[in-house]
Amino acid sequence: MVMSHSPSQLPPSQALVKDDALHAKTERWFEYPVKVQPHHTDYAGIVWHGAYLAWLEAARVECLHSIGIDFADLVQAGCDLPVVELALRYHRPLQLGQSAIVKTQMREMTGVRIDWDYEIQALDSPEIYLSGRVTLVAVDRASGKVVRRLPPAVKDALIKLTR
Amino acid sequence: MVMSHSPSQLPPSQALVKDDALHAKTERWFEYPVKVQPHHTDYAGIVWHGAYLAWLEAARVECLHSIGIDFADLVQAGCDLPVVELALRYHRPLQLGQSAIVKTQMREMTGVRIDWDYEIQALDSPEIYLSGRVTLVAVDRASGKVVRRLPPAVKDALIKLTR
Amino acid sequence: MVMSHSPSQLPPSQALVKDDALHAKTERWFEYPVKVQPHHTDYAGIVWHGAYLAWLEAARVECLHSIGIDFADLVQAGCDLPVVELALRYHRPLQLGQSAIVKTQMREMTGVRIDWDYEIQALDSPEIYLSGRVTLVAVDRASGKVVRRLPPAVKDALIKLTR
Amino acid sequence: MVMSHSPSQLPPSQALVKDDALHAKTERWFEYPVKVQPHHTDYAGIVWHGAYLAWLEAARVECLHSIGIDFADLVQAGCDLPVVELALRYHRPLQLGQSAIVKTQMREMTGVRIDWDYEIQALDSPEIYLSGRVTLVAVDRASGKVVRRLPPAVKDALIKLTR
Repeated sequence: MVMSHSPSQLPPSQALVKDDALHAKTERWFEYPVKVQPHHTDYAGIVWHGAYLAWLEAARVECLHSIGIDFADLVQAGCDLPVVELALRYHRPLQLGQSAIVKTQMREMTGVRIDWDYEIQALDSPEIYLSGRVTLVAVDRASGKVVRRLPPAVKDALIKLTR
Repeated sequence: MVMSHSPSQLPPSQALVKDDALHAKTERWFEYPVKVQPHHTDYAGIVWHGAYLAWLEAARVECLHSIGIDFADLVQAGCDLPVVELALRYHRPLQLGQSAIVKTQMREMTGVRIDWDYEIQALDSPEIYLSGRVTLVAVDRASGKVVRRLPPAVKDALIKLTR
Repeated sequence: MVMSHSPSQLPPSQALVKDDALHAKTERWFEYPVKVQPHHTDYAGIVWHGAYLAWLEAARVECLHSIGIDFADLVQAGCDLPVVELALRYHRPLQLGQSAIVKTQMREMTGVRIDWDYEIQALDSPEIYLSGRVTLVAVDRASGKVVRRLPPAVKDALIKLTR
Repeated sequence: MVMSHSPSQLPPSQALVKDDALHAKTERWFEYPVKVQPHHTDYAGIVWHGAYLAWLEAARVECLHSIGIDFADLVQAGCDLPVVELALRYHRPLQLGQSAIVKTQMREMTGVRIDWDYEIQALDSPEIYLSGRVTLVAVDRASGKVVRRLPPAVKDALIKLTR
């Protein structure tokens, strides 16, 4: 039941089906609050750079949940949304005990590729700790292959996200 | 003792001191073998996308070790090398039980910024699972600020890496 | 600044200073809600057994916060509370997307040893997923040694917890 | 395909089928070397208490591999070995950059329950950092239920481990 798609099955970064492109962007950020616990920190007393990825993922899952897409149901139904690209910039460190807001919005849906923008911001100031983008692609779990089209329920919910 | 540099202390991506730039690239990859254990996997039976960052870090630390830089000693001496940028592309998934080689090389050292290139490759074929780049910057632990120059021992060892 | 206490500095499990013992137990559980995100799961689609430890820690830190002890402040002030013993029983698995309540209460404070009891319970039924106990000991960060007495503010707050 | 066994399906700690008990213990420890990387550490500069569980798991998987049991194959064949109990004692901390040996041996196989003993020891001295026990139980992945008997290949390999 393990996916095993070959590299040719991953869509190239540039050559995307333009007909199916939805150059939509949500107006509002979805906000997901976090707090730095001991297990997030490293020897420097700040959040280990890899620990942010769990927060980005949780914010994305909860953003989908807020528009009616239950990620566990999607997986159960045979569709997965693995991360295929990731670009992050660490602006300043978050320290043990600090709270922050993970802000995310869907930036673009191009065929079965979905780009999410991120900013991690202080609670009470415009200070940014991290900014970045994460790209997902829809995959059929049974075959392990990238799907031709997003499941309609997912596409419709994501389109709603852009209004 | 926790670092707390302000964003202005992070060097901008483009405007780097060209005089101090070392456009050097190592010829050879440093190779760090890994094997997918249960704790690396997620519900899809493949390595969770965030788990790769621990491998990239370990490969980098061991590459430094191979040229005489002990990372723990460096930290003890008051210098840290936090990740300030990260860009990864996930080409195909690694599954439970699979082995692979994390390949890394220093691509460029520009002042106190150090870029590392990465490829995670199959043991016995040219298949690539992940490629990417990680950028570090040297920081003084006491002040939390980016240092003006790399510690000479680090710079000399890294220059050796390019030959 | 790294702690490095020798094994003789860890208090033996049995031989505890009885005079200073506080056989107190909180009447009420502190409740910390959690939800299973993809990064918590392993190849079996359930929470990886090690991932629970982050939840237990966060519940403990937030329980302390609820009685006025800020863990980051405590660390800043030179006191740490490392885990010295851990005993867990995994009753049934939590699956991707499930929510649950991490319940914790201080069970006993004996000198500078503090035992915490845990249960992870379903949201809407008495089903238990995990039960266990975690033992902390107070350590002076500068010397790395177990302290003779808990900081008064910590002790007083914990005593309040038992009423 | 996710396991979902009810608590009654987990064997009680005491009431084990005595007829099927194999009170065997391996004479020799299996040794798995580890080194503390930045991602293992927390704000105290030492290994975070939860990070050890990944090492214990990897040592167990590689010990099984050394006697001919490929864990990924076992999972593929429909058998899982989840952790059902865990008891650890943290004797002294491991610091950034330190190396150590994770030692493990199967202590007892009682029906489908398998106990593993652990010690994490210094490379060049008898100092112990952690000791503990981890209990696994064999589960059928399709039904999510505890199996009546270990797969013969697994049982035979484990019996060999005791000689």
